[in-house]
Amino acid sequence: MADIAALLSEVVGPANVITGEAMPDDYGHDEALTVAPRLPEAVVRPQSAQEVSRVIRVAAELGVPLTARGSGTGLSGACVPRPGGVVVSFERMNRIAEIDTANHVAVVQPGVTLENLDAATAAHGLVYPVFPGESSASLGGNVATNAGGMRAVKYGVTRHQVLGVEAVLGTGEVIRCGGKFVKATTGYDLTQLIVGSEGTLALVTEAILRLYPRRPHAATVLAPYATLDGATAAVPEVVASGIGPLIVEYIDLVTMGALVANSGMDLGVAPAVKERTVAYLVIVLEDRRADRLDEDVEELAVMLSERGALDVYVLPSHSGAQLIEAREKAFWAAKAAGANDIIDMVVPRASIPGYMAEVGALASRSGSLVVGCGHAGDGNVHLSVFQGDPTTRDALIHDIFAAGMALGGAISGEHGIGTEKKRYVAELEDPAKLALMRRIKDAFDPHGVLNPGTIFD
Amino acid sequence: MADIAALLSEVVGPANVITGEAMPDDYGHDEALTVAPRLPEAVVRPQSAQEVSRVIRVAAELGVPLTARGSGTGLSGACVPRPGGVVVSFERMNRIAEIDTANHVAVVQPGVTLENLDAATAAHGLVYPVFPGESSASLGGNVATNAGGMRAVKYGVTRHQVLGVEAVLGTGEVIRCGGKFVKATTGYDLTQLIVGSEGTLALVTEAILRLYPRRPHAATVLAPYATLDGATAAVPEVVASGIGPLIVEYIDLVTMGALVANSGMDLGVAPAVKERTVAYLVIVLEDRRADRLDEDVEELAVMLSERGALDVYVLPSHSGAQLIEAREKAFWAAKAAGANDIIDMVVPRASIPGYMAEVGALASRSGSLVVGCGHAGDGNVHLSVFQGDPTTRDALIHDIFAAGMALGGAISGEHGIGTEKKRYVAELEDPAKLALMRRIKDAFDPHGVLNPGTIFD
Repeated sequence: MADIAALLSEVVGPANVITGEAMPDDYGHDEALTVAPRLPEAVVRPQSAQEVSRVIRVAAELGVPLTARGSGTGLSGACVPRPGGVVVSFERMNRIAEIDTANHVAVVQPGVTLENLDAATAAHGLVYPVFPGESSASLGGNVATNAGGMRAVKYGVTRHQVLGVEAVLGTGEVIRCGGKFVKATTGYDLTQLIVGSEGTLALVTEAILRLYPRRPHAATVLAPYATLDGATAAVPEVVASGIGPLIVEYIDLVTMGALVANSGMDLGVAPAVKERTVAYLVIVLEDRRADRLDEDVEELAVMLSERGALDVYVLPSHSGAQLIEAREKAFWAAKAAGANDIIDMVVPRASIPGYMAEVGALASRSGSLVVGCGHAGDGNVHLSVFQGDPTTRDALIHDIFAAGMALGGAISGEHGIGTEKKRYVAELEDPAKLALMRRIKDAFDPHGVLNPGTIFD
Repeated sequence: MADIAALLSEVVGPANVITGEAMPDDYGHDEALTVAPRLPEAVVRPQSAQEVSRVIRVAAELGVPLTARGSGTGLSGACVPRPGGVVVSFERMNRIAEIDTANHVAVVQPGVTLENLDAATAAHGLVYPVFPGESSASLGGNVATNAGGMRAVKYGVTRHQVLGVEAVLGTGEVIRCGGKFVKATTGYDLTQLIVGSEGTLALVTEAILRLYPRRPHAATVLAPYATLDGATAAVPEVVASGIGPLIVEYIDLVTMGALVANSGMDLGVAPAVKERTVAYLVIVLEDRRADRLDEDVEELAVMLSERGALDVYVLPSHSGAQLIEAREKAFWAAKAAGANDIIDMVVPRASIPGYMAEVGALASRSGSLVVGCGHAGDGNVHLSVFQGDPTTRDALIHDIFAAGMALGGAISGEHGIGTEKKRYVAELEDPAKLALMRRIKDAFDPHGVLNPGTIFD
């Protein structure tokens, strides 16, 4: 291992290789609740695609596994290094190369954070519309996990914003795919294959991201329901209306209680209504014109009232922002409450009511508590699993995933598989697809140095 | 070859294998202007994924290349069979399995045509928003070529609508990827890799497509300009306004003349304006509310007037529809006018003015005529090349592609590479990317039976 540190120092300079006592604990974990931290043998901090390429060649030569790391805010263990491995940290590659206002794109290095990009785009009246709830997250990490968040119902997820990448293959070759355009049929779409591959196919060293006009007006509507079914059943109609909501979330009673307690917010729900409430629907609309926003809010409120909401509250802008911020921090509320694991199954959105009923039955049968909230417009349910016994919990989560897959869903909507969910993928996914994915990995990374053991073994 | 016909007959029944004299000429070509027709040894017409799987296994066993065919409306030669090859025609797999109104998706077999899907979705107030200009095209062909069309500036192209597929690999294995949801991070996105792969990775036997609320109100705005630059330079501002246009097209003088002549339409442009016009911008807005549409049309008209349009015409709905239909048929107008080839380079949309100037210079230097129209909002320029000498034309097209790639563009925005553009890909693309694409093809199709020689040799 002295060898590899020395060789990496030749590539990036000794100041950018961290080993031994000097290594901060942060490099050994992300935010997954179940991950066992593990420090790497070395951390290397390249500052260009060429340096990344040379790092990969060194690792391939010595057979040392590399794990890419952005801000370390992931929830699946994907940036925890392999035993004896090296972490490639993109903290020095944090430059916004360009905000191209004519083409509505940003060109960023992987270490740029969402909050920095948001500030840079705001200055031009533009927005990068992916808000996964953690603004210190890096764009590189977002691309690797295909990060989502609440606004996906309107704008889509990271995948839909990544128009092109510069990336380094496991061979050390640097390629550029895509570009400042939304369409191309010129060979296979390598960009889309790299997005969401959790650092196992290539290391992204630059991304071309789609930007949109920033809408100046937004309003938050809160609707309590007497049943979770009632809340989620209203969603297809809201989407079908053509109002085009920015955010459509459901929050169950327990989770809303935790959010309110954590943030100290007062949403103004009348006590008599609160008593009967089991779940909330939170809908945010945005518009470039205040008058149209007001009209649409009115239309939405009528629609919800007529379709089973106990009441409808158009929140004052301060409370609305507080609620959305609290919802973004739901993971921390779940963690503080002692959740043992969190999952983010995706199912067809119209299947949410039936799916949640099944999840409730599975939870009670196993003597566990499963509560949550989710992106109701996308069918992406975020569940906090409270079950201290690992074997019981493992069986329960397996069954929760299996039930969702039986409805045509997928195990993770936006967190990714990482190391923490791969056993469920191995158990539940089609072996032919897994074998194909392994062959694709070999095509990108013939020496197996890029984050081996993530997604699948 | 008697062998393979007999073996295929065992799979699909003798009535669904066509050989020899009985074979219609249609199976030997698509609509590419430069393609040399070639009839296959046999046409096989499966009716299920299982039959497709067995067809592929037979072909792999005998080493016979297979070429998938939908409606044969492609423009790149991708469905012309290889010498001694077999065409897999999806004409019998033309069932719309489901219009799921709650999840806003359609589930279709590959042989379904766009016009049939449009009729089926219209009945529910929904729309599949890809209109590549040829409504007899099949969804399978659209998925294979990642078909685009005029509405991509608002809705994106086929890739953005395909949420999942059932597909048969070159191994004969049937896989299902994606589902009725817009987001997932559960392994590699095989769906997006298969979309646009021109039948070389897998044969799609079912697709899950995203639907949208159908907007009842639309208006067409026509703005003549004294220069092509003037027309295309207005586009970024229109997009930045947030009006969200459905269609943003430019049409040059020669092409508009051909469209008008072909269709007999009268757009009502004043003679004094027409005399000074070199290019037109055509913008269509749509809305769920008539009042908002009117307001936005007014705002757009003012914007265009103030930014160099010679005049602005809000077309009566009949003329608007005629113009859009004529634009959709621009390929046929080019063909009727004797164009020797057509290309559909994509460049960053703000680069269109500079790119078109360069194309003009290249054309005049080579003594050729290059005219066209294009999806100005997407940077996708459709050029008709008039140059009878194949060597001169080949060199010119090479240079036109090279100039666009120097601007960060791609060789085809939506037609695909097929057999007819692959030599330019071989000359101009990064060899590392081509080698990677070949390894990916091997991962899907280890025996090389799926449309070999398409995209690359």
